[in-house]
Amino acid sequence: MNNLDVCLTPDLLHLHTVDNTIVVVADVFRATSCMVTAFAYGVGSIIPVATVDECRDLQQRGYLAAAERNARTVEGFDLDNSPFSYMDERLQGADIAMTTTNGTLAITKSRAAVKVLVGSFLNLEAVARYLRTQPYDVLVLCAGWKGRVNLEDTLFAGALADRLRDEYALNEDGALMAHRLYVDGKDNLINYLANASHIRRLQRLGIQKDIAYCLQHDLYDVVPVLRGSALVRMDV
Amino acid sequence: MNNLDVCLTPDLLHLHTVDNTIVVVADVFRATSCMVTAFAYGVGSIIPVATVDECRDLQQRGYLAAAERNARTVEGFDLDNSPFSYMDERLQGADIAMTTTNGTLAITKSRAAVKVLVGSFLNLEAVARYLRTQPYDVLVLCAGWKGRVNLEDTLFAGALADRLRDEYALNEDGALMAHRLYVDGKDNLINYLANASHIRRLQRLGIQKDIAYCLQHDLYDVVPVLRGSALVRMDV
Repeated sequence: MNNLDVCLTPDLLHLHTVDNTIVVVADVFRATSCMVTAFAYGVGSIIPVATVDECRDLQQRGYLAAAERNARTVEGFDLDNSPFSYMDERLQGADIAMTTTNGTLAITKSRAAVKVLVGSFLNLEAVARYLRTQPYDVLVLCAGWKGRVNLEDTLFAGALADRLRDEYALNEDGALMAHRLYVDGKDNLINYLANASHIRRLQRLGIQKDIAYCLQHDLYDVVPVLRGSALVRMDV
Repeated sequence: MNNLDVCLTPDLLHLHTVDNTIVVVADVFRATSCMVTAFAYGVGSIIPVATVDECRDLQQRGYLAAAERNARTVEGFDLDNSPFSYMDERLQGADIAMTTTNGTLAITKSRAAVKVLVGSFLNLEAVARYLRTQPYDVLVLCAGWKGRVNLEDTLFAGALADRLRDEYALNEDGALMAHRLYVDGKDNLINYLANASHIRRLQRLGIQKDIAYCLQHDLYDVVPVLRGSALVRMDV
């Protein structure tokens, strides 16, 4: 039986070897929820970049560009970090460059893996269904907040562990902790997250609607995967 | 209201500033449980050192020495890493040098704090009672396992957060997660830890008795504190 492990923040990624592993990156508030929504609405590709400067370079070369820092849109970019901004028919087939505080950095740090997938509650079952067919170990990489752990990405990791608990072993305590927390909170995730630090950060920005949306399970049958430097939609 | 935060492993300590903070180090299986037991039985001081070589040097200078790596006693030392070894009247007033895989390293990494305390379930209420009188933030530093998070130290952090929840704010997700896990598991910690990786590691060594002992709450009214390079007993 292959192993499913959870890395609670990119600052602990040095403790994991990913070369025989599929990495699932989660930044559910809101980068990876945006990405999944964008592909569900027909975006062609998303290039995740680590810095605002790289993102601006790609914008000047014709990409639609999205840059977020500290939960706010950086001035001068085309798209923000709300998933509702990606429900736009004008984005069909578009190529997007994106940088966010945590999520895109987690993706760029995972390049050595067999595959890098983008996960969120919105495509939870699609990711699980794909992984059930794969012969590799799985590492869920929580994007966290500036190196720190966060509750929402940990809950996603626990949700994926829960879906895969018959097919993968949960041998490591990071995976056990995530799974226990998800089982403890799943009946009312919004309530369970009420005191989480990023929820408080986002509520100050008035985006409760985004939070409720990002916690919906299994809305889309879409699995974004990293091919070279771009995320594309994988047909599963 | 001061803040209680939890650092789930020493590999995340760089994200925390500890200069206006009291750090409580926990390595409940078994280093900090040994230390608390040793002071309860009258040991004079314990010098935590990071390496086996430093420990051997102190042994040659007359200290009783305890060295553990990978949950086993290193050959040639006087004491092992079982708390029962410290229930010995011959240790009264003795000075001990100790190095362990995770716990002593966590202590030596915390030296910049206002105070470094040693915590375990065995002295949980004694630590909580002392902290209720203090005007500083608190950081619970979980020793983890070779940089990784572990469930047992996280549960201790959650237990301390639970005891202090009226006096300290739990603003960060590390603290929230630890607290939620403790509340979820507290009615049967042995059962809750049954699949934890270090429990499986220890059970292979046949030391279930140590595990049950280390999970007992509030056995001793002892708070070890770091003074210079040595842990001593603080009267509270």
